[in-house]
Amino acid sequence: MTAKPNFAVILSGCGVYDGAEIHEAVLTLLAIDRRGGTYQCFAPDRTQLHVVNHLTGQEESGQSRNVLVESARIARGSIKNLADFDPAGFDALILPGGFGAAKNLCTFATQGPDCSVDPATEQAIKAMAQAAKPIGALCIAPALIAKIFGNGIDVTIGSDDGTAQAVEAMGAHHTKTSHGQVVVDKARKVATSPCYMLDATISQIADGADNTVKSLLELMGG
Amino acid sequence: MTAKPNFAVILSGCGVYDGAEIHEAVLTLLAIDRRGGTYQCFAPDRTQLHVVNHLTGQEESGQSRNVLVESARIARGSIKNLADFDPAGFDALILPGGFGAAKNLCTFATQGPDCSVDPATEQAIKAMAQAAKPIGALCIAPALIAKIFGNGIDVTIGSDDGTAQAVEAMGAHHTKTSHGQVVVDKARKVATSPCYMLDATISQIADGADNTVKSLLELMGG
Repeated sequence: MTAKPNFAVILSGCGVYDGAEIHEAVLTLLAIDRRGGTYQCFAPDRTQLHVVNHLTGQEESGQSRNVLVESARIARGSIKNLADFDPAGFDALILPGGFGAAKNLCTFATQGPDCSVDPATEQAIKAMAQAAKPIGALCIAPALIAKIFGNGIDVTIGSDDGTAQAVEAMGAHHTKTSHGQVVVDKARKVATSPCYMLDATISQIADGADNTVKSLLELMGG
Repeated sequence: MTAKPNFAVILSGCGVYDGAEIHEAVLTLLAIDRRGGTYQCFAPDRTQLHVVNHLTGQEESGQSRNVLVESARIARGSIKNLADFDPAGFDALILPGGFGAAKNLCTFATQGPDCSVDPATEQAIKAMAQAAKPIGALCIAPALIAKIFGNGIDVTIGSDDGTAQAVEAMGAHHTKTSHGQVVVDKARKVATSPCYMLDATISQIADGADNTVKSLLELMGG
């Protein structure tokens, strides 16, 4: 571990319905900074599944946006292409949620347990696991973790039975959780928390992100 | 004041270069919730000045986005048209920064002290002032306050001399500040803080937003 633990944060766009959930992403960055870490944001350079008008909730036909370009809004321009991710430079990796995690980083939103995973995302997560470095995932992002790890990995997506069943169908073991709780798989060094998979306040999201970052710091020592 | 102080938050898009600064916006909402308040987001229903690619920093020619629709990303869809703002329902109003405050809520970014203000924004701010309810502004948003109030109002935009001179040219009195500091004009019940007008960490932004919200709560009692 470097003097200041360095976190890679994988974003999936900018906005809960078609990208990264903005509160979860920002509060993850805040938790890392508050706990003495540093961070670098990444996102895959690919077209979003679609663009959703967040005022109406409806898909905007004919619009196209890029995941890396939109994620750059959350990162204030300080973001890198996930294809250039080098695990050697990082002590942990974390994925905020939002539908982008299930629409742009994998196809869970449309294909459920039969989903495929974005190649750059899968490579980054597998490289960190290979290096025995901790990985965190918030909200719906644990579905991606379930798909990649399977094999009984302990995760949580909160308390939604349908999603929990789909996560278990991918070989994970799901534990129901409430606000701010974190499920840790110590063997695989994976920490997950439900965040906006529950009907939560923004303070509860801050708690969930902070508790997950705290768990990742503890897993670094383990 | 209602049992739970209710804050109106005016957003100006979604992304620092053409809209609301996302960290300032989210951390304002967090500060309000942490301090026991409630909030409602608003934005004007108008076309953004332009769309900036936040990865390259360049303007995207031929693209058009709506301020209210993009702001809805930060508000998770829970946002209202600023034209429908009723000051009777709120105890305070706050404006996060980002270039959107100077490009979409007024024309300060292109016209400096000779700028004009978006009519819905001007009406909302003047209505709150008329009702003697406190108003907060972060980052570059105090330029808008200077334009509307003038008349020696005490504000800060941090330590940038050029911007400070432009703010004074609109009739305000500018005080240099550092991270997390708040300038309060008690007579006008206006609180301002520099946030990302300085080269800041995300924790310093959280402090600036929180100190501003704290000042607004104190001004409510005054």
